[in-house]
Amino acid sequence: MKTPVLVINFKSYRESTGRKAVEISKLAEKISRETGIEIAVAPTSVDIVKVREQVSIPVFAQHADPITPGPYTGRINVENLKDWNIDGIIINHSEYQLRISEIDFLVKAGRANGLETIVCTNNIDVTRAVAEFSPDYIAIEPPELIGGDISVSKARPEVVENSVRIVERIDRNIKVLCGAGVKTGEDVKRAMELGSRGILVASGVVKARNIENAIRDLLKGMGEMDG
Amino acid sequence: MKTPVLVINFKSYRESTGRKAVEISKLAEKISRETGIEIAVAPTSVDIVKVREQVSIPVFAQHADPITPGPYTGRINVENLKDWNIDGIIINHSEYQLRISEIDFLVKAGRANGLETIVCTNNIDVTRAVAEFSPDYIAIEPPELIGGDISVSKARPEVVENSVRIVERIDRNIKVLCGAGVKTGEDVKRAMELGSRGILVASGVVKARNIENAIRDLLKGMGEMDG
Amino acid sequence: MKTPVLVINFKSYRESTGRKAVEISKLAEKISRETGIEIAVAPTSVDIVKVREQVSIPVFAQHADPITPGPYTGRINVENLKDWNIDGIIINHSEYQLRISEIDFLVKAGRANGLETIVCTNNIDVTRAVAEFSPDYIAIEPPELIGGDISVSKARPEVVENSVRIVERIDRNIKVLCGAGVKTGEDVKRAMELGSRGILVASGVVKARNIENAIRDLLKGMGEMDG
Amino acid sequence: MKTPVLVINFKSYRESTGRKAVEISKLAEKISRETGIEIAVAPTSVDIVKVREQVSIPVFAQHADPITPGPYTGRINVENLKDWNIDGIIINHSEYQLRISEIDFLVKAGRANGLETIVCTNNIDVTRAVAEFSPDYIAIEPPELIGGDISVSKARPEVVENSVRIVERIDRNIKVLCGAGVKTGEDVKRAMELGSRGILVASGVVKARNIENAIRDLLKGMGEMDG
Repeated sequence: MKTPVLVINFKSYRESTGRKAVEISKLAEKISRETGIEIAVAPTSVDIVKVREQVSIPVFAQHADPITPGPYTGRINVENLKDWNIDGIIINHSEYQLRISEIDFLVKAGRANGLETIVCTNNIDVTRAVAEFSPDYIAIEPPELIGGDISVSKARPEVVENSVRIVERIDRNIKVLCGAGVKTGEDVKRAMELGSRGILVASGVVKARNIENAIRDLLKGMGEMDG
Repeated sequence: MKTPVLVINFKSYRESTGRKAVEISKLAEKISRETGIEIAVAPTSVDIVKVREQVSIPVFAQHADPITPGPYTGRINVENLKDWNIDGIIINHSEYQLRISEIDFLVKAGRANGLETIVCTNNIDVTRAVAEFSPDYIAIEPPELIGGDISVSKARPEVVENSVRIVERIDRNIKVLCGAGVKTGEDVKRAMELGSRGILVASGVVKARNIENAIRDLLKGMGEMDG
Repeated sequence: MKTPVLVINFKSYRESTGRKAVEISKLAEKISRETGIEIAVAPTSVDIVKVREQVSIPVFAQHADPITPGPYTGRINVENLKDWNIDGIIINHSEYQLRISEIDFLVKAGRANGLETIVCTNNIDVTRAVAEFSPDYIAIEPPELIGGDISVSKARPEVVENSVRIVERIDRNIKVLCGAGVKTGEDVKRAMELGSRGILVASGVVKARNIENAIRDLLKGMGEMDG
Repeated sequence: MKTPVLVINFKSYRESTGRKAVEISKLAEKISRETGIEIAVAPTSVDIVKVREQVSIPVFAQHADPITPGPYTGRINVENLKDWNIDGIIINHSEYQLRISEIDFLVKAGRANGLETIVCTNNIDVTRAVAEFSPDYIAIEPPELIGGDISVSKARPEVVENSVRIVERIDRNIKVLCGAGVKTGEDVKRAMELGSRGILVASGVVKARNIENAIRDLLKGMGEMDG
């Protein structure tokens, strides 16, 4: 992906699964073309191939299992995502936390198969540990900000700043995304100023009354950024 | 599904994921049409929609998560499978065992959404407990037979017989499938004579040198059965 | 245990771990002697041997792992509980739910080692399934009653009645305990009248301002019951 | 603990649980006194308090759960270990792997409560990530060495050397222990020369025909080391 980037996690919401996953993805693609700003989508594993067929923006899996192809029932391996030209994987989301050895496995499997990796972290210390694995992106999701009214960039700007500084010191190639506490274009703008290279958002977009407006509002905060 | 039925679990094998999942499914459909015997396929969640689009034989998910649509990242809900006309769910496979409350949840979610359910069990007592949930199918998979050379129908016919008798006593509508220890058409024939209504098979088909021959050989054992 | 019985789950509360676990257990023993009503305690695995040494009332583990002795780090096997004369095991508590095959394993391991088993269930269907394993006790814990203000015996008496009737039909030897929605001696009395043979309680006792009074109040409802 | 140190993980073996846990611990204490070399023991959570009462050498838990005291059934919190003067915790053993956020939680809980922490790792990259949490010890357990005949110090000396060097670069206070592939006093000696500060051993001691000899043999390799 190029940055700045808006990554939309569809989760398992009724509003963003099935045919709706395809619709929202097409809408995201349209807005991305118009604005020139990168937007990626992360549909469920069931919807992901249909989405992939319909859009050319980056498509991420919400999860993959730390396995190689083999005798595993009900699991998703990275090679199977690559079969359908999926672009990346979200790893260790707060709703699907993984063992440390599994994160290591998946970042390596992503690299080996040409899929980008976004690893989610819940605090500065976990961010530092994950940085040692050199994923492409780290999405910081402090639990105190998830689903709340506090904005990461206004109320706790030091979380973003410190994360960016610490990650840079360990591996300059890792890009930090804000994964919680971002509600408005103003929040996005502030997050970018603090060093974040993009946003990972879910309900703020897919549960919005008007999804298009919600996306456009967030993108405003990315308007004049790097590439 | 109508019975007797051959259910092919694709697991996560390289030989049965990606485009191969579609190919094997088309082959299964062709053989099912020719022989008039029901064959169902269970691809990965990533491949499942592509398979669904290409064949009209029953398509089962290898797993679903015990959740309703909502804020869950990386999970698969039954409604999302229904979105794409998936026919059923394998539940509690020995490689993805579930909590008892989760099995209860998924059998009910299958029923509520019109998906058939196959619950896997590892011994007679677990079979009896699962029968109380009234799934459509129970696939018996004694661990001592999984991946081994012992045939359930020859070496341990009493496992099939007892399971069938016990399940019938609790709920006559549940059909028993043999989920392990079946290698040849001869094994299938014996399993059917002992009261089984079908077979759940994986590597025996998808890792076979000649998949078509492997399927046809197993179907021989179902030749003159009920509907 | 003889019935009626009050089983006190200490959970991991500060108020009921460490030396406090021993104190509460001694208090329970004293009250049990005075009233002639059976009281059992379930301390943490760390505290359990100290409690066992200090009291002769029944002592239950809050959990055991479904393993035989062997190369497992950080796990608790039933044989290890038997080493110290622990009387029983709570299995599948809503805060530590188990796979169906694990419940089967643990009920059998309890029976083989002479430990009584209490299996917790979250609804009628799971109760029916668990009854097929023939544990000594089933503690019904409908999630809508846990931690709430609704009393199982007053607001939803049919939950207790139906559970007792269904369990009896499958195995007359299993005794039903009320595991949620019991706050007062009045609730206990009603639960016993509906067929329950005892109570599984936690915060209602160990977080009470006066633990002795809380226990005595609950026992009032068991006063004139069977043995 | 002072180093060099021999940490004996009792796992759940019949040979090292119940009264045997106390016996082996007393034996370890005796040998430690005679040789002046530090030996620590890690019994099951059930046995741990009895062991603690009988010996004054360091006693570690094989596991703790990432919770604070509260409404958790069947879990072990660090405060509960502190109640009984337990000295430390093994975290993320290969047989009980944890989420990355849980390792972070437990290292901090150990520090806050005065318990030393040993975090196990399965390769160099995970070692580097864990080093960011600054536990007291990291026990390296490459899976290819666990239970095998290959000695870490002879066959793959670079694993120890690299781990020590990398850990030192991140936090000089962390001490590296060899957690696999150590069978003889000769192996121990080599591991110490490569920079390891101790050994984490299990079956090599507790399943030995003569436990005393097994311990003494390993200690030979630590004979002339630092403190």
